[in-house]
Amino acid sequence: MNTYNAHFAAQDDPNERYPLTDVVYYSQFGGLLEVRHDMEALRTRDAEAWKQLFESRWMRTSWPYGSGVWGKKEWVCPTVADENVVSMFEGGTNLFWAERFGRELGVEDLWIKLCGNSHTGSFKDLGMTVLVSVVKQMISEGKPIRAIACASTGDTSAALAAYGAAAGIPTIVFLPKGKVSVAQLVQPIAHGATVLSLDSDFDGCMRIVRQVTADPNSGIYLANSLNSLRVEGQKTVGIEIVQQLDWQVPDWIIIPGGNLGNTFALGKGLLMMHELGLITRLPRIVCAQAQNANPLYRAFCDNWRYEPIQARTTAASAIQIGDPVSVRRAITMLQRFNGIVEQASEQELADAAARADRTGAYACPHTGVALAALIKLIERGEIAKTDRVVVVSTAHGLKFSRFKVDYHEATLAEVTSRYANPPRELPADVDAVRRALDL
Amino acid sequence: MNTYNAHFAAQDDPNERYPLTDVVYYSQFGGLLEVRHDMEALRTRDAEAWKQLFESRWMRTSWPYGSGVWGKKEWVCPTVADENVVSMFEGGTNLFWAERFGRELGVEDLWIKLCGNSHTGSFKDLGMTVLVSVVKQMISEGKPIRAIACASTGDTSAALAAYGAAAGIPTIVFLPKGKVSVAQLVQPIAHGATVLSLDSDFDGCMRIVRQVTADPNSGIYLANSLNSLRVEGQKTVGIEIVQQLDWQVPDWIIIPGGNLGNTFALGKGLLMMHELGLITRLPRIVCAQAQNANPLYRAFCDNWRYEPIQARTTAASAIQIGDPVSVRRAITMLQRFNGIVEQASEQELADAAARADRTGAYACPHTGVALAALIKLIERGEIAKTDRVVVVSTAHGLKFSRFKVDYHEATLAEVTSRYANPPRELPADVDAVRRALDL
Repeated sequence: MNTYNAHFAAQDDPNERYPLTDVVYYSQFGGLLEVRHDMEALRTRDAEAWKQLFESRWMRTSWPYGSGVWGKKEWVCPTVADENVVSMFEGGTNLFWAERFGRELGVEDLWIKLCGNSHTGSFKDLGMTVLVSVVKQMISEGKPIRAIACASTGDTSAALAAYGAAAGIPTIVFLPKGKVSVAQLVQPIAHGATVLSLDSDFDGCMRIVRQVTADPNSGIYLANSLNSLRVEGQKTVGIEIVQQLDWQVPDWIIIPGGNLGNTFALGKGLLMMHELGLITRLPRIVCAQAQNANPLYRAFCDNWRYEPIQARTTAASAIQIGDPVSVRRAITMLQRFNGIVEQASEQELADAAARADRTGAYACPHTGVALAALIKLIERGEIAKTDRVVVVSTAHGLKFSRFKVDYHEATLAEVTSRYANPPRELPADVDAVRRALDL
Repeated sequence: MNTYNAHFAAQDDPNERYPLTDVVYYSQFGGLLEVRHDMEALRTRDAEAWKQLFESRWMRTSWPYGSGVWGKKEWVCPTVADENVVSMFEGGTNLFWAERFGRELGVEDLWIKLCGNSHTGSFKDLGMTVLVSVVKQMISEGKPIRAIACASTGDTSAALAAYGAAAGIPTIVFLPKGKVSVAQLVQPIAHGATVLSLDSDFDGCMRIVRQVTADPNSGIYLANSLNSLRVEGQKTVGIEIVQQLDWQVPDWIIIPGGNLGNTFALGKGLLMMHELGLITRLPRIVCAQAQNANPLYRAFCDNWRYEPIQARTTAASAIQIGDPVSVRRAITMLQRFNGIVEQASEQELADAAARADRTGAYACPHTGVALAALIKLIERGEIAKTDRVVVVSTAHGLKFSRFKVDYHEATLAEVTSRYANPPRELPADVDAVRRALDL
């Protein structure tokens, strides 16, 4: 079984490497680590054989391979023992054929990858299953890990807490006091995480969680996105999209971008397929940012010269980030994919989500950003009528009821609700109803 | 292809039958209709061949068979043309191995079927895909259907509106004014349904939608649960559970019950498997009711003598029903499965959900009712330590954030929040955090 292998590698020094079960987050020079696979070993199986293996496991019952992530275990994290995998059947989410919305927009072949139809309602499950499984492996090897921690106001803490709960590993969530409603936090609370509400802002929470976890004696493992294990799970989204299109590569994949780990992960999975011969061309990747939090868009418009910014409030709260952790590697990746960065105003993202909803989708605001970018690229003629386009939807719309209520009640900031659909009040009278329905 | 067939049959007269594309809801004597399949035709394929066919289609890309419902099309609705199927890849949801919760409760082999990990977040997708597909078929055959309507305050209207939006078929939702928040209604609103808010209660809305749809010239088709098409999709849940257990029948299946169509559907699917030889024994079915809405439980305790009741308020709002539409057929079905009815108080359902959440589930209040029933049956010794038990979770916990917030803030009616997990407030100071975490 362990013919396959992977390790942490420093991006700045090819000789610096660590086992995936080491508690290490940065290279000696302070850069991010990256999980590197033994590609020679992976090449001993040919492309057709990999496809057949992945198909044979797809959504089946043989533990842990029925999971969309663990069905590709050799490519994701071969060093975790099967019995240490903490899985809730992540991945394998519907690639929704947005037939009506595509027709409205003038593209014939439009798909939305619904990553939010999952256990915790967002794509974060894909990465968290890997991180928590590696921690379970560490514990089984006798490492003194007592808990896993993150600073997060949303999807990351929900996923961490759920997987920790399933595994019986304690979790700790740091968040700024008064800035987060109980509704936003109810997932980690329900999953029994220790939720610490600090008298600080988000950056202050991040500083403290880094300090606490930096002490090797703390026994607290850091789950924030500077931990590169999560990328390994997240990269399966691109592989799945191709697999669900019967191994055909789409022309475009559009993904919303904030901290940019997910954009990097999407590219990483596709490159791995390319390197191992499962695909022979690459799609173009579009990273879509909220105009109110657009440092990557600004870089793209300035020949990739990047400057951090102060992000402003956006309904797409999970990507409201002014200085993304993964910006460097995301830029390198986008260049590889002939990538484009596009932005969406609050008006554009809200309208795009509302229009998609009317055709059967149920878009979160981040997906709204990606759909708004799609609309702009079609209008500019960059995306052609016959192109096959996949939009990555990062969370279930059910996680963003407030956004949708505010839109349809016309109270969303910076937005005129052009597609609002308010209820109509009527007396309890059949004839009045018949008249209202024009019968 | 059309060697298989199905039609509406009156339960009280075997000779009364209608095509599934007829606009008909009741038998001549006013009873519910039931979809009856040509079992002789289905028997021409043997059990092993059916299993192989279902496995070969499971979660694959060949339209429309990748859907958990339509992968069993011959058993569900063989008379709809593939191009008229309106599907969002319903079914195939995770059968969650509740390992930690099972261990806590003293059962070794506990599973939760997460029907809520779906497009609209509840099991209603399973039935609605069938109903809306049949309507699309009717329209393609020239029937003058202009819209589909239902009276609903929750999951049914969400599913109807989503499938209607995907198909481009207008939908109408009737609801009592002032009794439903916009948050509860945001799915049909977002999906562009005509939402009519009537100056009446729920029963009044139901009366009016029946009157409006009873007129054959209205062109408005009724989607409420007295329409038996939905049962055909819902019945796949039992088939899927067995398939996901590698065609082994569990000892128990526990399902929450309100209108009782779903309880009937669960049994119907299992009986069909039994009749066609895919399984050789039946599980026992437990129907779990909220104590505040327990007419079936009362009947069970009184030798199945049924009386409607006035349901009281329960957090399990979708099953707050005093006079269930499908009570007669559900009783017959439960008798067939050596069934049990159990009830759960508000305290019991809320605690059961909270305990399950701490082990990685994310239970809606209805699932809480089923889990509370499970706990009681284990405590009474009816469910044995080594029994294999499956609990049907009917909706995603994300649809019930308010319930969870209220529990953890200890404001839920009739409930002491024994497992509440409130956040802890701390200064933004590493040492204070270390002390709090006992480092």
